[in-house]
Amino acid sequence: MGLFSKDIKTMEDLFVHTLQDVYYAENKIVKSLPNMIENATNAELRKGLEAHLEETRTHVERLEEVFEILGKEPKSIDCPAIDGIIEEADEVTGEIDDKDVLDAAIIASAQVVEHYEITRYGSLIAWAKRLGQGEAADVLEKTLEEEKAADKKLTAVAEGQVNLQAVR
Amino acid sequence: MGLFSKDIKTMEDLFVHTLQDVYYAENKIVKSLPNMIENATNAELRKGLEAHLEETRTHVERLEEVFEILGKEPKSIDCPAIDGIIEEADEVTGEIDDKDVLDAAIIASAQVVEHYEITRYGSLIAWAKRLGQGEAADVLEKTLEEEKAADKKLTAVAEGQVNLQAVR
Repeated sequence: MGLFSKDIKTMEDLFVHTLQDVYYAENKIVKSLPNMIENATNAELRKGLEAHLEETRTHVERLEEVFEILGKEPKSIDCPAIDGIIEEADEVTGEIDDKDVLDAAIIASAQVVEHYEITRYGSLIAWAKRLGQGEAADVLEKTLEEEKAADKKLTAVAEGQVNLQAVR
Repeated sequence: MGLFSKDIKTMEDLFVHTLQDVYYAENKIVKSLPNMIENATNAELRKGLEAHLEETRTHVERLEEVFEILGKEPKSIDCPAIDGIIEEADEVTGEIDDKDVLDAAIIASAQVVEHYEITRYGSLIAWAKRLGQGEAADVLEKTLEEEKAADKKLTAVAEGQVNLQAVR
């Protein structure tokens, strides 16, 4: 890529490029979630993050399925957005000792991750449909629903338990 | 910050830290949106981004209002998440010549920005309420509603016009 040729020429190129970006992101999340789980104290939060780690492994497999539908090899490209999001999460949690405040920060960081994925899958699904890739759209839709559910669950744990414990 | 002392001790510290993070992000968006507007072709997209630039200037002012409510000077701290998001947006749009595909990519990038803000303001509002900072929560709520509306409008422009033109 770079100076003399522009690599994204069509919507299909943009779709595949974004798929590769999200493939990188999902794999990075699989690597990052165990650290979040280790730092979390609230039992429901830990359980939720552990379940989401399992889901995220499935999201990686679903992306591989979509690459296959498109007749392409699964490939990652660097995704500075998720790198920055995880860097910020690590920086903030590294500044906190109190376990309840730390849980609140972990939830907020995990929700930033979820929202990144929600918007990326939203774009991918809209483009897949427009490109006549209904099967790919259906596969991606399953993941989007799980990301939205994970985000809602994090809000419920925050509002129901963590924020209450953290403010004393 | 750093090796020997942890700076975020209470939920109020976490609230102020995140406020400083979002203050950096909003200021960065004010600097980045003109570039997106310059690259956009679709008239409705340009108009929407221009209106959102105006709104974003108001969001900066609202954050200053919240700092004032808390009796603190407005201050930014580095926000690697928004830096990564903008870096990714610049990288992708730099790879595209076709004006319709470029519009689709600009919309997707702008929606990543919106979703980052939506989740951050969501956390800030929940924490403000829990901290008894109802006035701050009300100010932040106004911005959250505008971010959500901006995101919806971007989806409408994508689905109604841009994606249709970009897939030929």
